[in-house]
Amino acid sequence: MKGRFITIEGGEGSGKTTLIQKLKASLESNRIDIITTREPGGTEQGEQIRQLLLKGPTIRWDALSEALLLFASRRQLIINLIKPALDAGKWVICDRFFDSTVVYQGYAGGISIPLIRQIYAAISEGVMPDATFILDIDPVIGLARASKRLTDESNDEIRFENKSLEYHQKIRDGFLKIAEEEPNRFNVISAELMPEEIFLRLMRVIEPWLKTK
Amino acid sequence: MKGRFITIEGGEGSGKTTLIQKLKASLESNRIDIITTREPGGTEQGEQIRQLLLKGPTIRWDALSEALLLFASRRQLIINLIKPALDAGKWVICDRFFDSTVVYQGYAGGISIPLIRQIYAAISEGVMPDATFILDIDPVIGLARASKRLTDESNDEIRFENKSLEYHQKIRDGFLKIAEEEPNRFNVISAELMPEEIFLRLMRVIEPWLKTK
Repeated sequence: MKGRFITIEGGEGSGKTTLIQKLKASLESNRIDIITTREPGGTEQGEQIRQLLLKGPTIRWDALSEALLLFASRRQLIINLIKPALDAGKWVICDRFFDSTVVYQGYAGGISIPLIRQIYAAISEGVMPDATFILDIDPVIGLARASKRLTDESNDEIRFENKSLEYHQKIRDGFLKIAEEEPNRFNVISAELMPEEIFLRLMRVIEPWLKTK
Repeated sequence: MKGRFITIEGGEGSGKTTLIQKLKASLESNRIDIITTREPGGTEQGEQIRQLLLKGPTIRWDALSEALLLFASRRQLIINLIKPALDAGKWVICDRFFDSTVVYQGYAGGISIPLIRQIYAAISEGVMPDATFILDIDPVIGLARASKRLTDESNDEIRFENKSLEYHQKIRDGFLKIAEEEPNRFNVISAELMPEEIFLRLMRVIEPWLKTK
């Protein structure tokens, strides 16, 4: 039986990492064989691309080049990890996926969204998330959380945080817009709720799958 | 006045580097402001992508990921170097360009050529070579020359040489095919001619441009 593919999206400080850890633990306690991964990255090749995109303090990438690099990372992730795992009946949770490119490089970066969707169709091998959860947060709150985390963890992946509030507002609007367009796949959950409540809302979507696995 | 954009293509050991050096010297003696560059690479970002593609001994890229990385490098080259130079009236010579992706990743790698052309149209900002010279060589001779060069220069960029003769035959056939399809832009020159003769044949195409510059 084919596995399930779940992606978690959301702006900075929306709590993706915490939610993924909880979900993983809960699915494992249900004896589901689960793989968690992230974008960009998740494969040896993808992590090298992640370095290019997030670690260079001086290099600046054009939004279209950035989208192409993300798609190169995504292609390797799909063929090396996601597709083989799903075909083997495993579940995969991915921290950011294709929808981030639509929103960050498309809505906010000005790249043609039909082009982004077309490249995805060409690289995807038919893989599409079964469910995508968008952790929605007011960017003012999200950025305050993210900046606290950066101070706490001496994280050097600074690229995406280093933008204006207006930019982050565009990101939020973009996610809400694509969620409206594809309501069957997307689930928007307020990231301002208590973590337990966020997790419960996510599980309400996933629980029916546990009975049929 | 807008500059001219010339690209040089051809398999391993076809003598691209020598020809480019000669052409550059000749154009400079005609007081043309000329920039030479290469693919993948040519910009800070592109050279980092080149490292990913050519220097990793253990990493293997999927042909489609490879094409996407080449396009990311190409996009930066076009917007940071080629387009500004041409707009300023400079000439640009590029060692490999878009046609290499059509041939290596398309004809030989099995990636959809219409997709490759479509991505190029999306990233090119209208830039297209004024002339492309294909140095055509029997792969048996070309590989013997390239392998001598590798021994001589302790070159560690080994990826593209490390393929079967059949693969290199496909590359040659691919270049000849695209040249047939677009005879106004392409000029095929036998790389088995003497270097002086190759250079004369190239200059026959370029000389009319020198009078009108």
